[in-house]
Parts: sequence; structure tokens; C-alpha cells
Amino acid sequence: MLRVDLNCDLGESFGMYTIGTDEQIMEHITSANIACGFHAGDPAVMRKTVKMALAKGIAIGAHPGLPDLVGFGRREMEISAQEAYDMTVYQLGALSGFVRAEGGTMQHVKPHGALYNMAAKRPTLALAIAEAVYAVQPELILFGLAGSALIKAGEQVGLRVAQEVFADRTYQVDGSLTSRKQEDALITDPQTAADQVVRMISEGKVRAQQGSDVSLQADTVCIHGDGPHALAFAGHIRRLLEAAGVEIRAVGS
Amino acid sequence: MLRVDLNCDLGESFGMYTIGTDEQIMEHITSANIACGFHAGDPAVMRKTVKMALAKGIAIGAHPGLPDLVGFGRREMEISAQEAYDMTVYQLGALSGFVRAEGGTMQHVKPHGALYNMAAKRPTLALAIAEAVYAVQPELILFGLAGSALIKAGEQVGLRVAQEVFADRTYQVDGSLTSRKQEDALITDPQTAADQVVRMISEGKVRAQQGSDVSLQADTVCIHGDGPHALAFAGHIRRLLEAAGVEIRAVGS
Amino acid sequence: MLRVDLNCDLGESFGMYTIGTDEQIMEHITSANIACGFHAGDPAVMRKTVKMALAKGIAIGAHPGLPDLVGFGRREMEISAQEAYDMTVYQLGALSGFVRAEGGTMQHVKPHGALYNMAAKRPTLALAIAEAVYAVQPELILFGLAGSALIKAGEQVGLRVAQEVFADRTYQVDGSLTSRKQEDALITDPQTAADQVVRMISEGKVRAQQGSDVSLQADTVCIHGDGPHALAFAGHIRRLLEAAGVEIRAVGS
Amino acid sequence: MLRVDLNCDLGESFGMYTIGTDEQIMEHITSANIACGFHAGDPAVMRKTVKMALAKGIAIGAHPGLPDLVGFGRREMEISAQEAYDMTVYQLGALSGFVRAEGGTMQHVKPHGALYNMAAKRPTLALAIAEAVYAVQPELILFGLAGSALIKAGEQVGLRVAQEVFADRTYQVDGSLTSRKQEDALITDPQTAADQVVRMISEGKVRAQQGSDVSLQADTVCIHGDGPHALAFAGHIRRLLEAAGVEIRAVGS
Repeated sequence: MLRVDLNCDLGESFGMYTIGTDEQIMEHITSANIACGFHAGDPAVMRKTVKMALAKGIAIGAHPGLPDLVGFGRREMEISAQEAYDMTVYQLGALSGFVRAEGGTMQHVKPHGALYNMAAKRPTLALAIAEAVYAVQPELILFGLAGSALIKAGEQVGLRVAQEVFADRTYQVDGSLTSRKQEDALITDPQTAADQVVRMISEGKVRAQQGSDVSLQADTVCIHGDGPHALAFAGHIRRLLEAAGVEIRAVGS
Repeated sequence: MLRVDLNCDLGESFGMYTIGTDEQIMEHITSANIACGFHAGDPAVMRKTVKMALAKGIAIGAHPGLPDLVGFGRREMEISAQEAYDMTVYQLGALSGFVRAEGGTMQHVKPHGALYNMAAKRPTLALAIAEAVYAVQPELILFGLAGSALIKAGEQVGLRVAQEVFADRTYQVDGSLTSRKQEDALITDPQTAADQVVRMISEGKVRAQQGSDVSLQADTVCIHGDGPHALAFAGHIRRLLEAAGVEIRAVGS
Repeated sequence: MLRVDLNCDLGESFGMYTIGTDEQIMEHITSANIACGFHAGDPAVMRKTVKMALAKGIAIGAHPGLPDLVGFGRREMEISAQEAYDMTVYQLGALSGFVRAEGGTMQHVKPHGALYNMAAKRPTLALAIAEAVYAVQPELILFGLAGSALIKAGEQVGLRVAQEVFADRTYQVDGSLTSRKQEDALITDPQTAADQVVRMISEGKVRAQQGSDVSLQADTVCIHGDGPHALAFAGHIRRLLEAAGVEIRAVGS
Repeated sequence: MLRVDLNCDLGESFGMYTIGTDEQIMEHITSANIACGFHAGDPAVMRKTVKMALAKGIAIGAHPGLPDLVGFGRREMEISAQEAYDMTVYQLGALSGFVRAEGGTMQHVKPHGALYNMAAKRPTLALAIAEAVYAVQPELILFGLAGSALIKAGEQVGLRVAQEVFADRTYQVDGSLTSRKQEDALITDPQTAADQVVRMISEGKVRAQQGSDVSLQADTVCIHGDGPHALAFAGHIRRLLEAAGVEIRAVGS
């Protein structure tokens, strides 16, 4: 039977600042990537988000980011591989404190924003992140862009990996996402988005912008939870996937 | 046989900034309280300090502090009990990431600076910290000022505790330390300091500034590692304690 | 003729995080207290808020806070008078950079949150803040709680001051605000709130919760801008004040 | 008569952390680049450093950096031109608060670390920084790498500029510094270093590693103040320049 995981970034509020629709988006997803305080999140938000995910049966993952709160971890920084290792261990450990305190277990790690993008392209950085995850808890699943350097690094160090795909983004022939700066980067029709995911899962292929097919493996789909439109889109995608006979299930379950 | 633990705050360097004499002071102590990034320390410093402590056979503890890097965690902040709980879980978790990555185990938790002082006096805050430690890892030992609210809170939640005493500070009749603002707050003669510790360990008593004896339990002695004088003093104290037949040993060993 | 200033805290968004209804509340107020990056705000937010205030003809003030972003500057910290001086100079200077860059002038300084409350009660801290303001720009107006230590300190160093009152809070016989923890701390009826302000301006008096009158001077009224209710309340108060013949005008104009 | 300015980065201590030999290096230099709290420095350090520079008659400049305290502003970040503008205005303003409070005037602005390097190569970023300086205080002098994009941007917006050269670094044919990763990047002999500077000042030329001469203008020489060796080297260079008949004088005096 076809199956796929739906993951979403959560716990990105900070202090007095609220962002995202965490409680509602949890109705649609199976894996939560929880911010760890570097690009977003704070100890109180982490505790509440872990608790909420456990209560709703959503699998928990750490979502480590660059130390750039004002930039939300979206600005690339020239960090060394050692720095990437250290910031992954730190943030992963911090979230696991809350997971243990609430009596849960952690399923996965997915780097955030610029760290995710850098890890997709740079093998040395990707390896450092994978090694950090393995060193702290070797049974964790490493989430990365399907076919990217991070996936290869995870496999290399002996981690279980989950290849992430996007329902609402178009692809290039090399398997990368079309830049948001280009037209046709986004897919806004839920049926087209769901069809793209179903084909990725069933055939292991996606039609690139250039017209040819690209092979890729789809273990988990990135879902956005920011705003009412994203929320409705998420619900829509989930129903269409289920209607197509795809089982929606956390990758580690 | 008489025994006592010698503990010291370590890993308080940050980025380009170096503070303390970590490598040398480790020759004299048995337990290391490692900063977790809120009042001092950063991921790289944490990794190196954990590694060094493991290599030298020093027991490792988390040293959580207030989120006040510029004030080095020494300024009291009106945090809630929930905030104390959350910042303890976060920092404890972050350090445990490095401890697991390096293949070690954690022995204890000792709050830092203003958090330590507040936890000594305020039962609600103390309880929140103790509950945080218990929730994350119930076998950890909680270090607190001998006879303080933190020790009582630790016992109340079912943690093993270590009562901390000071070799180089004088005491008041209520068991508190003489304020540094007063004369005679500090003991600068190593023999007097060692004698005070030996009596604490062997008789469970210390002579207060007011002239009468105060009962207290001495499980671990706070050692300072900042500067060449502190280093020499630490070595001196250790030799005098050993000469007096006291076994110097990590509290959890 | 009766006149009063209406001031509001603004520019408290941060990075990806949006808070407040800055653009709308500016329709109702005459003075803007703009966060300076310690408790809230960031360089981009400061620039935009200064620009918007200038475009709408709102007088600009610096709103320095404690260095506690996660606590929004609302948690008291045991800072020294020197530290209060230094953080005021720093934040005041930072905001004045944007004011000069946009071709405007600064009217006032109002400490934020816990710094405001501490400065109302502690003469030494209040004096340090007043001296900082005077040292940087002696023509600035210092906003403080009516009758508080901050007002006295401002007068003492030779600053022009503006005594702040609250429309939506009740008062105690000593001129302090009723604690939010008590019942009847808040005034929710706009007419009652406006009446309280009109009497403060015209008679220099407010009826305390204990039933007797308290003398106080009302130069500026604190307006809240967080949420649709606060926005409607602000508009309501302004119309009622104007209907009562009060001129609404920036204190420094 | 030949003249040149000697500048040094100062005020880079933070909280409990001390770095640099600020007081001693001030004996040798004429312009101080004072950190503004983003990559290093804090309000207390800024006040003390400004005060010390004024007491010693050293010209004061702002030394804005990237918001990366743990990386000391040395890691490139993908900031936008607008972000560069905003962080320059903020930090420049903050330092000018202390300068005004101490009754001094500011002479110049020199970006720090990665921001300096990025501004040397990227015209758009350089222009944003130059515009920020001009908007806040158009009479300030902009320091940048001799011949770099930052110098061109400063001239373009109408700022006075100071072209910075290095005594202890070798040059490439394109006028850039030899990378520290290569051999022969550093000049360790004081006489060779002084000779290089004298020729830059008198002839406007430097011999590149490739053997040919490169034209460049030398208004100010970067001096390092970290450690006893740097201190001795600085004194040595200054005496040799004076012996060669070069007047050592702040660029704006």
C-alpha cells in the first residue's frame, strides 16, 4: 500500500510573539518539526509544542536552525562543519530535554531554512549534521531534501533517512526546487499538488519544469502552516491523498 | 572514611572570549559544572569541556543559568517558576546532547549565579528547578547550597541531592554565607579554609561569624578556577584535605 | 484651554514576528514610544516605525527596555544604576540614528515595562536614566508615571518631564496604579475612562479606590494598541476627550 | 609632508569577558574603531572606551558588525542591502549616543570583519552602508579597504573616505590582500612592514606578491592590538614611520 508522511514546521512562536497555526495544522500532519530556540522558539514554546504533539499523536522531530533569530534562520551564514555539528547537537539535545520531560520519544531531525538549504548542497556540512544526529541518538531519522547531499550524508553515517518532497513546488531536471524568484515555482491548485505527490509516491517520479521526468523518492511531504490559506491547502491535500488510497502515517511509525 | 567532592564552574568561555583555567583546575576537582549557553558557554565550548572532563575522569554536571549573557547570569530576574522549569529543562537537555555525543553520562545539575541564589531562598522556584531535573533524568544529583530551599526541593521530588559548602567563605548563624559586602566574608588562608571543610565533613558543623556552631551537611565543596591565585588555592586545599585523611571523590561515584 | 498628549508603545515587532496595530493606532495618538531592540523591535522595524510616525506627524520618543527579548522587558532585573544609564544611552542613541537618517527630531524618552516600573519606585535608578537622557540630548522630554521617582529625577537633572496617567486603570491613595492582580484594577467603560482623564487634566485630581482624591498632574495619557478592542477604545477615548473640549496634542509641540 | 593615520579595533570586550589591550594600544594609534554591540562590545564597554579615547585624544569611529556575537562578526551572512543599511544606522546611532554623552564628536565609521570584507567586494552592500553613514551624519569619514567597492560607494554618496592599508599583510596584483590561507600572507618584520607603508604613502604603490607594482592610496593603516606581540609591533611600526618623517595623525584632524 502507498504511504507517506506529512511534516510541518511548528513551535516557531517566541516570547510574546505568536506565529503559525500550530494547534490547527496538527489535525492534518503526522510529523512535527519543532524549533529549538536558535532561529525561533523558546523553552516555553518548546514545552507546549512537545506536549501538544504528544497529546495529538504527532511524531516529534527537532528542527535546528542557524543562530539568527532576527533573520528567522533564513540567511545563509558561512559556518564551519564543526559549527554545524555543534549547533545540531545543542539544539537536538535541548528539544530532547522537553521530550523526555513529557515522557515521549523523538522520531527525527530536520534542519531549518538556510541550514536545510546549505545541507542539501554541501556534502561536508551535510556530513557534520548527520554525524551530530548519529552521535546523540543513532535511531533518529534524518529528514532532508529528496536526493540531496543531506540524504546521502545520512545514509553514509548509518542513519535512517526520510526524503522530503514538496506538494506545492515545481522541480527542475536536476531534482532541485524551482527558485521562488522564477514564475511557476509554486503550485496553487490542490489537485495538481496532490497528483504530483501521488505520482512521486507511486512511481518515484516528478515531471520537471523542463518537461522530462526526474526520479526521486518521496517519504515525507512538507506542509506549511502559516495562515488560513496554508491550513485549508493542507487539509485539502490530505483528503485528496487519502482519496487516492495513500495512507498518511508518520515515517517512523 | 571521610570523603568529599570538589566541584568547579567550567566551560564559561564564549566565542572568541576565553575565561577561566579549565584545563588546569580539572587537575584538582572531581565534579565539573558546565555552562549551557544562557549565562556563558556556547556549543563549541560545551563540546570541548565535556570531552576534556571525560578524558580526565571528572564527573559532569549541567550548570544552567539565567538568560543574561552580558550580566553573566549574576543579576536576579523576576522569572516565574514555570520559566525556571523551562530554562532548566532546555539547558540540561542541551548539555546532555554533548554528553551523549561524547559517550559519557551526566552526574548532576547545579544552577548558576543568581539562579542558584534565588533557588536557595525561594521554595517555589527551587521546586520548579528540582521538578525539571527529575522530569528529564531522575537519577541526576541536584547540587544546592547546604540547608537551602533547593536541597529541600530536591529531596521533596525524590532526587538525590548534594549539599554544597564553601571553603573560602564564612557563615552566618542561619547557615547562610556572609555577604561579600561585609568584612570577613572571605577566608584567604588555605589552612583555615581546609580546617573549616574538615570540620564540616567530620562533625557536620561550622563556626558562624557570631561565634556559635551551625549544623550543616557537606557533600561537595565549591572551588573557584578563575585566575592563578584561585588555582593555587584549589591545589592547596585539596592537598590539605587529603593530608587530613579526606578522600576526594565525585559525589556520584 | 485644556490639552493632553496621547502616547502609545509602538515598533514592537521583531524579525518575522508582527505585534501591535501600529499603523491604525497612529490615527489616534500624538506621541509614539518606539522600541529600541532590547525588549522588542529590530533595526528594520525601527526604521519603518520612525518613517511612519514622521509621515503621520506623530512625535517620536525612544522606548528603552531591559535586555530581555524573550520576556519582552517585563521581568524586573537587578541592574545597577550604571547599567541603567548605559542601556538608556545605547538605545536612545540607536533610535536617534534612525530619526536623523529620516530627517526628523526626537521629542521624548519613556522607559519600557519593568524598567519603567523600577524607575517609578527607585530614585537611584531613576536618576541614572534621567542623567543618561540629559547627557545625550538635554532638550528631550522624559515621560514617567505621574508623581513617580522618575519624574522627580527628570526635574532634578533639569529635563522637561511629562507626567503620564492612565485612562483605563484605577489608582490607589498613594498615587500608584491598582495592581492588575486586584479586582477593579481596570476601567473598561470608555466614558468612565474619559471622565477620569478629563478630571485629571482640569482639576489635577483622581478619585482613588479608597474613595478619597489624589492630586496628580496629567501631561500624557498611556494608550494601548494591541488588538482590535484596544484600538476601538483608543478612538473612543480620543473622541470623548475632544468632545469635552480637550485639545489632543503632542506634549512637546 | 607625508602623513598617515593609524587605526585599531577597540572596545571588543563583552560583559565579564575581556579582550584586547585597549589602554596600551591607544598609546600608538590615532583612530579607534569602537565595537557597537553586534559582533562585540556592550553598552558599558562602549562608554568606557569612548571615555578613554577622548581622554587620550584618539579620534573615535563606529565599528559596526554583523549580528553574530558567538562568531565575532567574522562569518559572512547573506544579508540584504537594506539589512546592511539598517544595522549600520542602528550601531552608528548607538555609539554616537555615548560620544555625545561624553561630550565628544565622531570622526569615522569602519565596518567590522565579514561586513568589511563583503562591503569591499559587493557594490550594492557597500552603497547601502555608505548611504546609512551619510543619512545619519554626512560629515563622517568612511574607512574601507584601499581601492575597494566600499571606497567607491563612499565617494559616490558624497562622503569623505579614508583608504585603509595593511602594514603586516602582503598584496596581490589586483590590490586585494593575500589570503591568510597562503604562505607569505603576513609580514612579520617591522622594518619591512614600515617600509611597505612608507612607500604606499610616498609613492602610492605597493609591490604585489606577483612582483609588479600596484597603485593604491594609503590614508590609514590597520593596527592590531590583540596580545603583547601585536602591541610591540604597533609601537615599532609607529617609531619607524616617524623616523622616516611620516607624521602620524588622525585622518580627520
